[in-house]
Amino acid sequence: MNQVPGSVVLLSGGMDSTTAFYKALAETHVVYALSFDYGQRHSIELSYARRTASNAKIPHSVINIKSMSGFMKDSALTGDVEVPDGHYAEESMKVTIVPNRNTIMLSQAVGIAIGLEASQVWAAMHAGDHFIYPDCRPEFIDKLNELIPIATESDVQIVAPFIDIPKDEIVQVGMALGVNYAETWSCYKGGTTHCGRCGTCVERAEAFYLANEVDPTEYIDAEYWKSVTL
Amino acid sequence: MNQVPGSVVLLSGGMDSTTAFYKALAETHVVYALSFDYGQRHSIELSYARRTASNAKIPHSVINIKSMSGFMKDSALTGDVEVPDGHYAEESMKVTIVPNRNTIMLSQAVGIAIGLEASQVWAAMHAGDHFIYPDCRPEFIDKLNELIPIATESDVQIVAPFIDIPKDEIVQVGMALGVNYAETWSCYKGGTTHCGRCGTCVERAEAFYLANEVDPTEYIDAEYWKSVTL
Repeated sequence: MNQVPGSVVLLSGGMDSTTAFYKALAETHVVYALSFDYGQRHSIELSYARRTASNAKIPHSVINIKSMSGFMKDSALTGDVEVPDGHYAEESMKVTIVPNRNTIMLSQAVGIAIGLEASQVWAAMHAGDHFIYPDCRPEFIDKLNELIPIATESDVQIVAPFIDIPKDEIVQVGMALGVNYAETWSCYKGGTTHCGRCGTCVERAEAFYLANEVDPTEYIDAEYWKSVTL
Repeated sequence: MNQVPGSVVLLSGGMDSTTAFYKALAETHVVYALSFDYGQRHSIELSYARRTASNAKIPHSVINIKSMSGFMKDSALTGDVEVPDGHYAEESMKVTIVPNRNTIMLSQAVGIAIGLEASQVWAAMHAGDHFIYPDCRPEFIDKLNELIPIATESDVQIVAPFIDIPKDEIVQVGMALGVNYAETWSCYKGGTTHCGRCGTCVERAEAFYLANEVDPTEYIDAEYWKSVTL
């Protein structure tokens, strides 16, 4: 018997998780897509997540963990700290960290996967995140996968298909799977048009360039990324 | 320098966590008390938690994780499944499990501890929970403590002072610390008076008996516990 595993997919509405969602649709039986509202500025991301799940006819919920954000005084993602311009892989981007965010989100997804009798939780952290986010590194996923059977007596495991590849390779995977990147969101500054200057906008533009693909994104400052990456 | 560690305490309003809170007050600098609302029937527990924290002048929040409960179809704690009568350490009590609950709560508490610059998270799981709840066992705490530095690059650790002792010893610790157990709640069935028949009521009455202490609790059925434990 060669049964396709059931999966729950973390779908933020960004490029990486949308690509992971498409890959999971191709390789597993996706039973649920989950987003988290932690009071992020860029809630337009959540509308893209909702639309992507709905297009694929996969049930989707936004889990509210906003009560966390009151404690994240120094995080630019949720607080009053200004979102810095520049390249993502810089020390300054540490203000975009919500401490322990991936453990928080993945542990809830694991509980839900058990409830829905799925055996995998898909998450889209990638090699470019390793530098600043400790909970995006392979050793984090490995240790969490050791914890799950001890915590739950279940065989649920985290699948992180992009953990070892850079963002431009994710773009290539996504293009092959037919992802419409115009319906994904990256900008940390909120608004309705990508700023082009924050860490994730720079990373986004760079990924399309390195993947040798057309970037469908409209940026307020479309040239800035070249000054910090090329 | 012999600095007292800062701590965040999980305070449900039950006997065990209230005792842990008192112990943390005695041994650490408690910066925050946290409760979780996962849609449990016994929300009176949360009012006791609020009062206990307020009496000690410690800031307290209830974190809403109710969105989890929609997925817990087979849990008597949140769903339509009936709460069983009988002794807690029985197979039938497994319906009182919310999968991965302690990882979910502790991972949020760890994020908050980092935000508040505390180095410990106190949690009150005890030896009597081991039998049915995998996330109340020492190996769970050990593995989670291995995960935290990898996930967060912080030195926060979970402290579980009762992990190896039974509930009657917790009562003895609490009596010595001046805990008023009349202001704690155990019953899984909700209401305003302890039922005396559900697993946690039975365990509660038994703990006072074994500790040789007067049980200040009013039960609807005050004699039932003897029929399943003695």
